[in-house]
Amino acid sequence: MRQLLVQHWQCANARDWDGFARTLHPEVEYRVPQTRELLCGAAALLDFYRSYPGAWTLELTRLLLDGDQAVSCTAFHVEQQTMTGIAFFQLRDGLVWRIEDWWPESYLPPERMVSMQRY
Amino acid sequence: MRQLLVQHWQCANARDWDGFARTLHPEVEYRVPQTRELLCGAAALLDFYRSYPGAWTLELTRLLLDGDQAVSCTAFHVEQQTMTGIAFFQLRDGLVWRIEDWWPESYLPPERMVSMQRY
Repeated sequence: MRQLLVQHWQCANARDWDGFARTLHPEVEYRVPQTRELLCGAAALLDFYRSYPGAWTLELTRLLLDGDQAVSCTAFHVEQQTMTGIAFFQLRDGLVWRIEDWWPESYLPPERMVSMQRY
Repeated sequence: MRQLLVQHWQCANARDWDGFARTLHPEVEYRVPQTRELLCGAAALLDFYRSYPGAWTLELTRLLLDGDQAVSCTAFHVEQQTMTGIAFFQLRDGLVWRIEDWWPESYLPPERMVSMQRY
């Protein structure tokens, strides 16, 4: 299962779309909760990744596995920017069946009653 | 370990600060990567939670455990709003030792080359 998700991200980064497709359940569903967008099916998800604009690269920075669930963090580099993607996975039949993809953005620290250091 | 993190969030929600404190390693560090804020030590983290303004409640909606690492999703309800918090934990000596806390916000779906449904 670790190998499946490593392959998922390595193949995406390498634009190895055949290898990427082999990690996907035919009925995969991909959701972006922050925009409430949904893609259904391996062909649609493959199109989405394949057509994603920009000279992006990504690295897997964290992977936790728990039964048929997993979460990955990826550093997504595009045009001098790096974003962190947090993806929750649910597997079925040893393949990626559900993806919930989060893209948190930087924001200015709010006023806090307890002040924090910056790092 | 599952019990530790359930207790962590249940005690926060119940304002049971003694119970909450018992989940924390004395040298806990709490980071918010989106703002690059950092709090060090159980006393500071306890103060931060205890003084957090508003009539908030939270529910644990997902918990994945992998060795000494974990991730939780919580629904944080405050003033008719619900935010999703994603917290990565690293444990030490059976206690919460590192927390990385993410607060992704909703955004308008960008133009995509592959159009998605909304849910």
